[in-house]
Amino acid sequence: MSKERFWILITYDVNVEEKEGRRRLRQVAKTCERYGQRVQKSVFELEVDALLFERLHVTLRDKIDEQKDSLRIYRLGVNKDRNIWHYGINNSIDFNAPMIL
Amino acid sequence: MSKERFWILITYDVNVEEKEGRRRLRQVAKTCERYGQRVQKSVFELEVDALLFERLHVTLRDKIDEQKDSLRIYRLGVNKDRNIWHYGINNSIDFNAPMIL
Repeated sequence: MSKERFWILITYDVNVEEKEGRRRLRQVAKTCERYGQRVQKSVFELEVDALLFERLHVTLRDKIDEQKDSLRIYRLGVNKDRNIWHYGINNSIDFNAPMIL
Repeated sequence: MSKERFWILITYDVNVEEKEGRRRLRQVAKTCERYGQRVQKSVFELEVDALLFERLHVTLRDKIDEQKDSLRIYRLGVNKDRNIWHYGINNSIDFNAPMIL
């Protein structure tokens, strides 16, 4: 399997009307945070290789309720920056910055 | 300017704590709906040419409050379908279908 890394975007709508939905939302966010960068409330950018890419499909699909939630995964390519424009406040976190504990 | 059409993705977080924010949210959604397809609550896919692409940057930037909201535009390329995976409920509307009035 290719070791080449590429960027993906994950967007989701989780139905949080019920407590169980809020739990799912936390689970999805937690998985995305583990491997990528939150850029908006329900939008994450992740740099992955083919193996992680496959795993994320399975893991995230397992965490949502397919009758109530929506999850989309976009493959952005190897160089993402020239294809993204951002306006307004920036929610992104620099994961390379030292953590304040 | 090139007439070639390509796909873009627009994602936004609008701060709706105040009434003015809810108005901005409606305005952003309305503009996106005019040219594209809503796929999640705050995620739209639009097929544009270079001119519309430039216009959308200006129009949407004008509608958000850059101190409070976040707007991201992703260029997806000419063929989007092979780079998108969807799980769960489908919010998208078929704009080519006859409208029920």
